[in-house]
Amino acid sequence: MISPKTFRYELSRSGVATITLTRPDTLNSLTFEVYQELTDTFAALDRQDAVRAVMITGEGKAFCSGGDVNSIIGELFARDMQGLLAFTRVTGALIRNIRALRKPVVAAVNGTAVGAGAVIALASDFRIASTSAKFGFIFPRVGLCGADMGAAYLLPRVVGLARANELLFLGDVVNAERALAIGLVSKVVADDACVAESLALAERLASGPAFAHAMTKQMLESEYAMTLDQAIEAEAQAQAICMQHPDFRTAYEAWKNKQPIVFQGASGPFQDGRAPKGAA
Amino acid sequence: MISPKTFRYELSRSGVATITLTRPDTLNSLTFEVYQELTDTFAALDRQDAVRAVMITGEGKAFCSGGDVNSIIGELFARDMQGLLAFTRVTGALIRNIRALRKPVVAAVNGTAVGAGAVIALASDFRIASTSAKFGFIFPRVGLCGADMGAAYLLPRVVGLARANELLFLGDVVNAERALAIGLVSKVVADDACVAESLALAERLASGPAFAHAMTKQMLESEYAMTLDQAIEAEAQAQAICMQHPDFRTAYEAWKNKQPIVFQGASGPFQDGRAPKGAA
Amino acid sequence: MISPKTFRYELSRSGVATITLTRPDTLNSLTFEVYQELTDTFAALDRQDAVRAVMITGEGKAFCSGGDVNSIIGELFARDMQGLLAFTRVTGALIRNIRALRKPVVAAVNGTAVGAGAVIALASDFRIASTSAKFGFIFPRVGLCGADMGAAYLLPRVVGLARANELLFLGDVVNAERALAIGLVSKVVADDACVAESLALAERLASGPAFAHAMTKQMLESEYAMTLDQAIEAEAQAQAICMQHPDFRTAYEAWKNKQPIVFQGASGPFQDGRAPKGAA
Repeated sequence: MISPKTFRYELSRSGVATITLTRPDTLNSLTFEVYQELTDTFAALDRQDAVRAVMITGEGKAFCSGGDVNSIIGELFARDMQGLLAFTRVTGALIRNIRALRKPVVAAVNGTAVGAGAVIALASDFRIASTSAKFGFIFPRVGLCGADMGAAYLLPRVVGLARANELLFLGDVVNAERALAIGLVSKVVADDACVAESLALAERLASGPAFAHAMTKQMLESEYAMTLDQAIEAEAQAQAICMQHPDFRTAYEAWKNKQPIVFQGASGPFQDGRAPKGAA
Repeated sequence: MISPKTFRYELSRSGVATITLTRPDTLNSLTFEVYQELTDTFAALDRQDAVRAVMITGEGKAFCSGGDVNSIIGELFARDMQGLLAFTRVTGALIRNIRALRKPVVAAVNGTAVGAGAVIALASDFRIASTSAKFGFIFPRVGLCGADMGAAYLLPRVVGLARANELLFLGDVVNAERALAIGLVSKVVADDACVAESLALAERLASGPAFAHAMTKQMLESEYAMTLDQAIEAEAQAQAICMQHPDFRTAYEAWKNKQPIVFQGASGPFQDGRAPKGAA
Repeated sequence: MISPKTFRYELSRSGVATITLTRPDTLNSLTFEVYQELTDTFAALDRQDAVRAVMITGEGKAFCSGGDVNSIIGELFARDMQGLLAFTRVTGALIRNIRALRKPVVAAVNGTAVGAGAVIALASDFRIASTSAKFGFIFPRVGLCGADMGAAYLLPRVVGLARANELLFLGDVVNAERALAIGLVSKVVADDACVAESLALAERLASGPAFAHAMTKQMLESEYAMTLDQAIEAEAQAQAICMQHPDFRTAYEAWKNKQPIVFQGASGPFQDGRAPKGAA
């Protein structure tokens, strides 16, 4: 059982694990304890078969304001290089575990997402923003580099090098509309719809073929380091494996019998919805 | 001579090879025979000097609906892993040959392009869509992963990781307008103009410097696996080679004499057209 | 002291080095001498602590029209392979030095940027275009391949593979509006505002944390060749190093005391401006 102490955790019957940061007074800033427990939780989620998709959001008006200025930033000045590296490795481990989790992750960006908060959203597979959401890779504003927790790896792959330069050198906070325009988020919705829409997307992902989804996420990451020829062989192997999974036959039988598809372990049929649209 | 049995093949005097899938009753679904013959044809096209550009399209209302549900999908359930892998390697080989063909390929996406059909379009160098075109990497809807025939390699490189996630986890069918907005197609034109516009683009590419085009296509692929320093040295060598090709002098002489440029082997001058516009 | 003979060079008190190409009669075409001196200058800029950001622009109506047709292109026909390679390596070295310069570079694209001129703009970290700016990777129009000076490496990383195909196979000249739509430039401004806006951006970058900016630029490049796991460890090390730099504490103290941040060596505070907007 996953029962974290520093944030809220819920698991729906449909297999959606919801993580809600619960420090609204500090715009859901992260303490050392929250970092560690999030990292451990994303590792644990990978081992829980009942979990088929994850949603992460924040309580109150913010998504996540990053490392807490008082409890973390102030404390770092007392550390030597070994101590600093211990910290940056902890924060990086969180992002690594989000990306390594072989289940889709939806960030419901309900408000401000800056610093580590922006990177957590970036490391998620989907981002749905509320109209009041803001994104800021504000590292240069605190004297740091934009290479933090994988941001300089992920951002060029999501928005391209030019946009990544803008975001990582300037550290500007961009609004939801701009985030949509550059492809940083999939969709912008009204503030009071952000969690519900994100949950609906997570439910839909949870109703999908979990085994195949795990392969998709793994392959998307692995193939960045492959040549096309290597990728094509790797995909041939990956898809042949998926073709031996019962979900493949399940879909075929459902199609033949004109029935809704219920994949292995899913609580309901894979929904015939629409992809997140570019326009709200 | 290329004379396929399972689809139509034409070679224009200007050097444009046109491949037209001719199974409109099944939305140009692919059988084992079509897969194999397309794969062989793209390999053969590389060796034919008369071919300077390729256009691929479908007869009727669809571009290509992917692997035929009856003759392929149903049959796969009888196969063991070795047999499944033989199939996924055949489909991957088609994409590899499209990408390895050192001549530009234009997909005239005249209608539905789903599954393998969407990947064939994706593997082409240019995509012009009709207003009724639809794109769907529908693998998750049949219980499979999005890593099929190189889709998980190519899609993030074309539309970025966030859009690739949307398309490959959800398997949604997106329309031409959405495809244009995310950069999946170059242009959207009226249904009855799709083939003509694509052909005009292919003709223009065919009138270009074939030797240099071959180098451009090869280098774009190779450089994904290089560092910037390696790429700059590789480009220095590639361009020095191109500078020894007669086409370089041809263009220079034409410029000096204010004459239209006719590159080696081309049937007409390299046209002074416009790049595909983002707006229809 | 940097005192080039073939273009104008100025260094502001705020640390912005401005390079202005000064051959307006030939649309700021490049001669062998200009190439070499630009290459040397970008190498020298890396060693000058007083330089914190760079702006490059052109005098008159053009940004840069690339290699001079008379003094370079015509001369190349007399060269053997060794001589051609010597030339392409010189041009590539310029781009390598722009990318290797550990300070942000802003291209004020005040007009036509074609051939090598387009690649110089592309290799800059930011591009602000005037409404009359034009971009053309016109290599195929002169019989050459699109793999020139790193263009086939950089362009897919900035605008994605599909847009890179359009630009590098067709060699079309695209206007500022189109460049903005595909993310090739950050912003389009009135012709008479282009240099001033670019300078303002460069000033802002110069007021930023120079040590951290250097790390950001280096890491963005290095991480293309890393896996995510490698990148996360590399960023943990990079950021731990930045945390030991005085700029980190400077920002923290300024935040605590509600004072503007003045980073080490900067002449003024890191400005609370806005990122380049997608809309003019």
